[in-house]
Amino acid sequence: MAFILTFLGKGGVGKTTCAIASAKQLASDGQRVLLASQDSSPAFGLLLGQSLGSEATLIENNLWALQLQSAKLLEKSWEELKDLERKYMRTPFLKNVYGQELGVLPGMDSALALNLLRQLHGQYDVIVFDGNGGQDSLRMLGTPEVVSWYLRRFRQVFLDSDLGRTLGPFIPPVAAAVMNVNWAADNFSQPTQEIDALLEQGKQSISDPNRAAAFLVTDGQPASHATARYLWGAAQQVGLTVAGVLVRGSGGEGFAPLPGLAIPSTQDWPSLMAAMPDLSLAKTAPQAVSVDVAQRRVSLFLPGFDKTQVKLSQSGPEITIEAGDQRRNLFLPPQMAGLPSTGAKFQDGYLIISF
Amino acid sequence: MAFILTFLGKGGVGKTTCAIASAKQLASDGQRVLLASQDSSPAFGLLLGQSLGSEATLIENNLWALQLQSAKLLEKSWEELKDLERKYMRTPFLKNVYGQELGVLPGMDSALALNLLRQLHGQYDVIVFDGNGGQDSLRMLGTPEVVSWYLRRFRQVFLDSDLGRTLGPFIPPVAAAVMNVNWAADNFSQPTQEIDALLEQGKQSISDPNRAAAFLVTDGQPASHATARYLWGAAQQVGLTVAGVLVRGSGGEGFAPLPGLAIPSTQDWPSLMAAMPDLSLAKTAPQAVSVDVAQRRVSLFLPGFDKTQVKLSQSGPEITIEAGDQRRNLFLPPQMAGLPSTGAKFQDGYLIISF
Repeated sequence: MAFILTFLGKGGVGKTTCAIASAKQLASDGQRVLLASQDSSPAFGLLLGQSLGSEATLIENNLWALQLQSAKLLEKSWEELKDLERKYMRTPFLKNVYGQELGVLPGMDSALALNLLRQLHGQYDVIVFDGNGGQDSLRMLGTPEVVSWYLRRFRQVFLDSDLGRTLGPFIPPVAAAVMNVNWAADNFSQPTQEIDALLEQGKQSISDPNRAAAFLVTDGQPASHATARYLWGAAQQVGLTVAGVLVRGSGGEGFAPLPGLAIPSTQDWPSLMAAMPDLSLAKTAPQAVSVDVAQRRVSLFLPGFDKTQVKLSQSGPEITIEAGDQRRNLFLPPQMAGLPSTGAKFQDGYLIISF
Repeated sequence: MAFILTFLGKGGVGKTTCAIASAKQLASDGQRVLLASQDSSPAFGLLLGQSLGSEATLIENNLWALQLQSAKLLEKSWEELKDLERKYMRTPFLKNVYGQELGVLPGMDSALALNLLRQLHGQYDVIVFDGNGGQDSLRMLGTPEVVSWYLRRFRQVFLDSDLGRTLGPFIPPVAAAVMNVNWAADNFSQPTQEIDALLEQGKQSISDPNRAAAFLVTDGQPASHATARYLWGAAQQVGLTVAGVLVRGSGGEGFAPLPGLAIPSTQDWPSLMAAMPDLSLAKTAPQAVSVDVAQRRVSLFLPGFDKTQVKLSQSGPEITIEAGDQRRNLFLPPQMAGLPSTGAKFQDGYLIISF
């Protein structure tokens, strides 16, 4: 299973340069590395020094690289979906639409990139993901967490609703008419369980410091500093470990307890490679969430925000934390699920909620 | 109806600075201007010189500004959706889920931003949209074009399919059971027509040089130049007029026939404002698509690509053009719809298709 490494920061601070330098460094250390860029323009090839395609190409010893192209990925995913349709549907109709026709809508870039990372996971030791490096990258990595919330919340609401009960009698004949199965409760529980397992795997990969980490990148500009601090907090909201801050020029203050690493302002690969951080730093970085079942307490690390920028609410069955334009719903262990919160305090960058 | 102005280019070239300077310049010329930033971090306020919220605030004479916050916009849109549900559904069930709980998924940022622009359209003369400025901004502005293709394509495929015919008998009782309407073909044609009209309006706004335009921004770096040229072509694929290129330092070659405008490298607003382009430049810029019904010919302006980077195909009922990681399906006027193409050539940045 590959370690997912990514870089966060304002545009122009050198995230792509860091991604390339890290990939080169890790490959030269003997790791099998995939460098995957979400930039489909020729700019990525110019920085890398060679042009690339949408398939992984070996560019150095142990180092493969590709540029994600959503139009192509969508075409491929569509053909896979049609295979599933042929298998499960009595009267397939998607078969009359071709992958080569499909336009790319907002959100598809992220979904397709995440799906590709999942598929390529097993073939590499490290995948260096050069995404947009801002909120969009966090939305992408937060997808398994957020989607699994939507599924558990809406499934329950639907089952409990009049609508669910009203539609109930229609589901068996419709399902039998359109699907290649005889209706039974079991026929739906299997795909449902598969999706749940997939999302659970995704959530665990993103939030495990042995499996994924981000580094912040900043230069001397105040706006770059503010962006890096904001993304630091927003990353915690999707459960991603931020393991350190790479500083070009000055401006590494305000990120304690993260280690700050100076990086040179050159495009000289050997010096850049030597300045790249060790992935094991992720293991000692603060974790986004820790749950203390005995004390009935949850601590959320939310650096870069003050008390007024963090909103805690409970309108549904779970506690919701809103900060950094991200919303996170706390899925608690069975011993604590459903307990009302008895208090919350904001201390040293941690939001501590008692139950 | 507001003119939508946006800036495209690589991260760090100064797109946000140009957006602020343009907004200030247009406001000082007496236009009512909204400056809307998709950056929810404090970095935008630092560049602007004052902090902002998610509601439009008057910051100078004629100039309002806001920072889009997807979590807040989603909450608001959800409540509007629940109002619709209450109105049309016999047994609403979304009512049991609260806007304050909802997490933000990839694609929602773009959909919510586009929806807000639509809602605020009538209140301003110009909306300066400071988005991510790359492929994501183009996906967002291309949404009406791409969604309307998906609807017309899948509607027809569904109606023609065995599945459509198989489900047919179930639709009336299910619809009657769950909706506050007596089933009749008409009940669905009204909302369908409303959605079509909305998408048509959106498509027309984006592709009309009197209503929307983008300017490219580049600095002296080769990667910035390559990104700007790539986005120039990709913008044509969503029908957006690119009206000029703003050049900081050197590197304005390769954009003919677009006018190149030098912009100063300072953060001095009066000199930046004076360097900002006139919106009327959009009217003389090459149009993305022109259809000559008499000659049975369609010309697509696709600058920045060579012949090998443009793919033309016809697997479905429409001609598909793939370039710049965007796919466009050509919706032709009735006189030409359904005709097979008899030839295509690529000349001086134009793809010319004959029917």
